[in-house]
Amino acid sequence: MNKPKIVILGAGYGGMIVASRLQKSTVAKDAEITLVNRHDYHYQTTWLHEPAAGTMHHDKTRMKIDSVIDTKKVNFIKGDVKEIKKDEKKVVLDEMVLDYDYLVVGLGAIPETFGIPGVKEHAFAIRSVNSVRLIKEHIEYQFASYNKQAADQDGKLTFVIAGAGFTGIEFAGEMTERIPELCEYYDIPREKVRILSIEAAPTALPGFDEELVEYAMNVLESRGVEFKISMPIKEVTADSVILNDDTEIKTNTIVWTTGVRGNPVIEDSGFDSMRGRIKVEKDLRAPGYEDIFVIGDCALIINEETERPYPPTAQIAIQQGAACANNLKALVEGKKEMEQFTPDIKGTVASLGGKEAIGIVGTRKIYGNSASAVKKMIDNRYLFLLGGMPLVIKKGKLKMF
Amino acid sequence: MNKPKIVILGAGYGGMIVASRLQKSTVAKDAEITLVNRHDYHYQTTWLHEPAAGTMHHDKTRMKIDSVIDTKKVNFIKGDVKEIKKDEKKVVLDEMVLDYDYLVVGLGAIPETFGIPGVKEHAFAIRSVNSVRLIKEHIEYQFASYNKQAADQDGKLTFVIAGAGFTGIEFAGEMTERIPELCEYYDIPREKVRILSIEAAPTALPGFDEELVEYAMNVLESRGVEFKISMPIKEVTADSVILNDDTEIKTNTIVWTTGVRGNPVIEDSGFDSMRGRIKVEKDLRAPGYEDIFVIGDCALIINEETERPYPPTAQIAIQQGAACANNLKALVEGKKEMEQFTPDIKGTVASLGGKEAIGIVGTRKIYGNSASAVKKMIDNRYLFLLGGMPLVIKKGKLKMF
Repeated sequence: MNKPKIVILGAGYGGMIVASRLQKSTVAKDAEITLVNRHDYHYQTTWLHEPAAGTMHHDKTRMKIDSVIDTKKVNFIKGDVKEIKKDEKKVVLDEMVLDYDYLVVGLGAIPETFGIPGVKEHAFAIRSVNSVRLIKEHIEYQFASYNKQAADQDGKLTFVIAGAGFTGIEFAGEMTERIPELCEYYDIPREKVRILSIEAAPTALPGFDEELVEYAMNVLESRGVEFKISMPIKEVTADSVILNDDTEIKTNTIVWTTGVRGNPVIEDSGFDSMRGRIKVEKDLRAPGYEDIFVIGDCALIINEETERPYPPTAQIAIQQGAACANNLKALVEGKKEMEQFTPDIKGTVASLGGKEAIGIVGTRKIYGNSASAVKKMIDNRYLFLLGGMPLVIKKGKLKMF
Repeated sequence: MNKPKIVILGAGYGGMIVASRLQKSTVAKDAEITLVNRHDYHYQTTWLHEPAAGTMHHDKTRMKIDSVIDTKKVNFIKGDVKEIKKDEKKVVLDEMVLDYDYLVVGLGAIPETFGIPGVKEHAFAIRSVNSVRLIKEHIEYQFASYNKQAADQDGKLTFVIAGAGFTGIEFAGEMTERIPELCEYYDIPREKVRILSIEAAPTALPGFDEELVEYAMNVLESRGVEFKISMPIKEVTADSVILNDDTEIKTNTIVWTTGVRGNPVIEDSGFDSMRGRIKVEKDLRAPGYEDIFVIGDCALIINEETERPYPPTAQIAIQQGAACANNLKALVEGKKEMEQFTPDIKGTVASLGGKEAIGIVGTRKIYGNSASAVKKMIDNRYLFLLGGMPLVIKKGKLKMF
């Protein structure tokens, strides 16, 4: 009766798929499975730009973990992971210590600040339900207080988005949808409001098809987004952003979307890592640790065609979750053969707000309405993988056109 | 062709009734009428506790002035009144100077701080559309940031209402409706939130029937309002309220509802006044100025039964507006006989949030559901006086029970 203990850290895209796959398999009987997460809900990180701008209710982006995970088959513990004692096969949580035989690390990421002064203190991040609710309220507060204070108006209605990558562009798109509503609600002329997208790299959406980048920038510029490309940020202060050319932009609101690094628990636990990400073996295990799988934003895998790391995405995390569940099942069954993981990139779509989007599906470029519908299908597909049609109906994006 | 010039300062309850009465009368042809107001909209001050708490959209409490006032008959000027030069018969606005033959002063009130330190700097007031939108957003911001910050939580979810008069009690009632919604939205247990009602006088709702006061306090206490009666406030700081007994209550939110004083323009223009209110003649004219009528919160009238001033209310302002319009008509027609004004107090109802209210109609005490319905009828009656049935349908409180 000595069942092996499987502990899954993090109920993000990866961790949730591992847990939901295992609970449906024989592993649920043959092993003791425990899922640990900071909140008692799971949220879809890639949707968070919408509640951040206020164009979607945050409840739409999350679900109670026990609405998807059967807690008779998978124990759930609400807790903060502090450290992985990999040589003792223990995980230290804020209020307890867990033993494991097999560990899945799906602890997600934190914003990458590149050590730029003031970012940690003064910038917002699109990171969690709590952080995006705060962004939404902060934005509304700028509008609400605008007509109340005669002086010191500089920057109150200037919204700076640092980073024109995926999240930054998608958030800018939502903001262009939201700002006109806020202007009407608070009796403020639209021309008082600025949305700036600032990117250090020589292009918006680095790595994306040029023609699609052009399309996206045109759409957003036509809705009033000002781009500053090839323009690193030097410093963030309480009421401004200082650019590399020493221009100071007055703003009360800077949303930091310049990419992520792996959860600090990785470095704090003494794993070899690059920006908090562990370069995993083909079977998703941490080098040197046959009992530790790493998936999602904490895992680094190399695209063999380009010889560069894949950017961490939900798509890859979900696929890793499935592969990880298969490998755990094999191990519990005493098999040695592991599934070798390679991402299968089906497509990438960025929403631009409203009915606009851009993307690549297979090798085909898509724009506008149809790209927007594909984006929603991608979001719904994840819900389907996780909880079947009932979850799609409950939480899905069902207005396709 | 030398038409007399009538200038109405302020589009509050009083000023709007004057303007709407005059535009329907022969005065619209026989005189040149001008209405001056800071905003291009009129709002119902007595409803503002609802959008302040966030239980009603602020647009429900206001209307574009030109949706009620026919600007072909009454000129409308958006402007701030700076001074009345009563001996030159001129009014100085922020951007122009107006001549008048007859002036109506309906400039409303500002919060009475009693010189208590910190009130001006740190307290909110339920005063205008702009100020209540800010209160609403400020409250939401406290909730939104609560789960984001581990330290310094003291007072973030403590809401202090200074003054348990009409506005304070009505606002407390709305807050008890709103807080559970906010707790749910932001994942915060209800017991983390405090609502305090602090009153310097020996009773809540001073001057109101004792039995009704008891009823109101019971209703609000059962919904979690904590009362501190006979407890003056000594000082307000950026993050606390200090009571007369030197207790310090940590709070980020203090809403000041301890009554009002007349618009400072009254004192600045050299009128004899008590707390910014001019003790008007029976015909509503300022003593010594046959060309100046004063109505609403800037007018002081004495209740001859009690020999004390009537509290300034919308009910009295509306009645004064009608009497003032009659007297202006008489003057334009060259008559000397003026209508003598006495308030006709039909009743007073205070809402307690939701379907609860208390009040007196005639000499009858009313409670609960029926008082709540009467309150809504009172609010609708004003809209009817101002704009007839179409305005009631557009802006009225139509869900009676």
